[in-house]
Amino acid sequence: VKSDTSRIEAFSDGVFAVAATLLVLQISVPKVGQDLLRALAGLWPEYAAYAVSFLTIGIIWVNHHQILRHLQKVDRTLLFLNLILLMTVALIPFTTDLLSTYLVAGHQDNVAAAVYGAVMTGMSVAFSALWAYAVKAPDLIREPGAGPGIGRFSVGMPVYAAASLLSLLSGKLGLVMYAVLALLYALAPLAERGRSGRASDA
Amino acid sequence: VKSDTSRIEAFSDGVFAVAATLLVLQISVPKVGQDLLRALAGLWPEYAAYAVSFLTIGIIWVNHHQILRHLQKVDRTLLFLNLILLMTVALIPFTTDLLSTYLVAGHQDNVAAAVYGAVMTGMSVAFSALWAYAVKAPDLIREPGAGPGIGRFSVGMPVYAAASLLSLLSGKLGLVMYAVLALLYALAPLAERGRSGRASDA
Amino acid sequence: VKSDTSRIEAFSDGVFAVAATLLVLQISVPKVGQDLLRALAGLWPEYAAYAVSFLTIGIIWVNHHQILRHLQKVDRTLLFLNLILLMTVALIPFTTDLLSTYLVAGHQDNVAAAVYGAVMTGMSVAFSALWAYAVKAPDLIREPGAGPGIGRFSVGMPVYAAASLLSLLSGKLGLVMYAVLALLYALAPLAERGRSGRASDA
Amino acid sequence: VKSDTSRIEAFSDGVFAVAATLLVLQISVPKVGQDLLRALAGLWPEYAAYAVSFLTIGIIWVNHHQILRHLQKVDRTLLFLNLILLMTVALIPFTTDLLSTYLVAGHQDNVAAAVYGAVMTGMSVAFSALWAYAVKAPDLIREPGAGPGIGRFSVGMPVYAAASLLSLLSGKLGLVMYAVLALLYALAPLAERGRSGRASDA
Repeated sequence: VKSDTSRIEAFSDGVFAVAATLLVLQISVPKVGQDLLRALAGLWPEYAAYAVSFLTIGIIWVNHHQILRHLQKVDRTLLFLNLILLMTVALIPFTTDLLSTYLVAGHQDNVAAAVYGAVMTGMSVAFSALWAYAVKAPDLIREPGAGPGIGRFSVGMPVYAAASLLSLLSGKLGLVMYAVLALLYALAPLAERGRSGRASDA
Repeated sequence: VKSDTSRIEAFSDGVFAVAATLLVLQISVPKVGQDLLRALAGLWPEYAAYAVSFLTIGIIWVNHHQILRHLQKVDRTLLFLNLILLMTVALIPFTTDLLSTYLVAGHQDNVAAAVYGAVMTGMSVAFSALWAYAVKAPDLIREPGAGPGIGRFSVGMPVYAAASLLSLLSGKLGLVMYAVLALLYALAPLAERGRSGRASDA
Repeated sequence: VKSDTSRIEAFSDGVFAVAATLLVLQISVPKVGQDLLRALAGLWPEYAAYAVSFLTIGIIWVNHHQILRHLQKVDRTLLFLNLILLMTVALIPFTTDLLSTYLVAGHQDNVAAAVYGAVMTGMSVAFSALWAYAVKAPDLIREPGAGPGIGRFSVGMPVYAAASLLSLLSGKLGLVMYAVLALLYALAPLAERGRSGRASDA
Repeated sequence: VKSDTSRIEAFSDGVFAVAATLLVLQISVPKVGQDLLRALAGLWPEYAAYAVSFLTIGIIWVNHHQILRHLQKVDRTLLFLNLILLMTVALIPFTTDLLSTYLVAGHQDNVAAAVYGAVMTGMSVAFSALWAYAVKAPDLIREPGAGPGIGRFSVGMPVYAAASLLSLLSGKLGLVMYAVLALLYALAPLAERGRSGRASDA
């Protein structure tokens, strides 16, 4: 009948989908009266931040999917750790708005970019904690040793922390780094696929 | 094929997930021009209220999950009681915004905190009514006597009512009490798990 | 494996859940500076309209659920009619905001209430069209003649149209009528259940 | 038990449903003080743009549904292409707001309509890329050759690109073209159904 993990998936998928879709609310309609094309062009950080955050949430969702596939059931600790992860994911529409607003204004956007990265770092920590707990709970995991190693998801923490610190140099640099990270995460498994066949990474 | 309770789960999960994710909308991007870090720090009640409400909605969702697992089917009365519960849950983004706005302003935040607690009390009443009805309807419940006792969910009512009254003394005290309650609810089953094994609380 | 109607349910449940949860956005946090309790009390139409609309969306969802249970598959016409229905449901957060804003202002709230009722009438028309099409398509319906009659859902059209017209006399009267209608729809099947047993209306 | 494509459906359905429901937020409640009926009438572009975008998102959802039905599993490339598609879908609430705001203002609405069409063109490109990739990956597709041809979904690209360019002549013309396109897409399969029977297009 129903997998024991189906409702945690339903709730999590809901939060991921709503958080991704709410990102659009930070894109502003230029006030009537100015030249519309020029005004739209001036808001490029809103579109860039939208794309980066949407892609990032999508990648977290894919990885979350991959973790839950390896679980045969969940306990309260895992539900709690999952809630902490979702709490950081649902913050992303705010940090995206913060980042794009300050990039548009060209003022203290380095601070805004560092805050953006700090939330991503927190998200990585929550993600690693979730997976580290699951792999050590042999009655939760479907097939011990079959899932991705802890290292795979832990690499995000130092990388996002470093990007967050570096973005204090320049907010635009921060945006570029977050975009590159999202693309790396999205495309790295594709490269891997080329080497090892498609069967195992669906 | 499909469980008779699957669509009530889908609708409820949707409301829980959307309500939790909408909480982020009350977090405001500081106006450009001030010192950004200082401005962000001054908005700490928004982050605190976000975390408390997100965790609380998550816990209600976990408990809701636990109740529905014990039902083999639903009737119109149960659907109606569930709607009343969801109506209080979907109010939480409003009460969270109210609480954080008045805490930031440092004005009448005790009244705002009491209103926050009043809605939580109403939510507890709705939750208890839902469960009390279900356990007395033998054709709805999967295995009479197997689910959690009515007492377990009823304890929330007097506790939230008391916290709501006490928060009239101070809005910050209210926030702390709601945070402690959320953590207690989240962690209590973990302690229980330590005693009785993981099998029964997944 | 998967019911042919499962994805139309998923999309519809999503729209119902999001529309119901978005209703909270029309409830406003009173500006800091006035007496908070008095200000909150003055906004009673926002809470009343929230409750009426939430309950109404919930009831439409229950009835929608009941219709889809009788379908074994869907065709493009049914998907199209369902989209029209969802389009009216997703308008309710707007009409609710309109109604409560004008009731709070005490100005032309009769017009706002009539518009609210007009959208509800449109929703009833869409709902009846959906069911009327389904019952006449013998390859869609699971068990011809087993579902509710067309009349059952069609009664909403003249009733909402009349309430919409009558609310031109007074916006508050309109709000009361819509509340009574929602409660009647919610509780009528309960009375029916008392007569005919629980088995058939779950 | 669970189809390999079920979680990509859940996430996608969530984004479709939330994007469609968020469209209502661009419909504005007229400020109190003016004649309400006249003010509501003046906002007709908001209702028209709402209906066109809601219908369009609904049609994309139906077609997306149809594609996923032909897949037996997904790989990372397909997940990535799906994310790009969803990213364009979730932009529609913004372009809808842009279009209706500038149509109401009667100023540069041709530019706004062209931007609206440009995003629709981008969405068509993403949709075609998704399907083109899937049909060429024989281990993903359930039954090679059984699904719709690539041409079927590719026709949207030049059509939306042309409509986008033509709308530079007039924003209202653009709105009419987008409405006609949505209706054509919604009703074309109905005509087809009349010819070929209902069995294959559910």
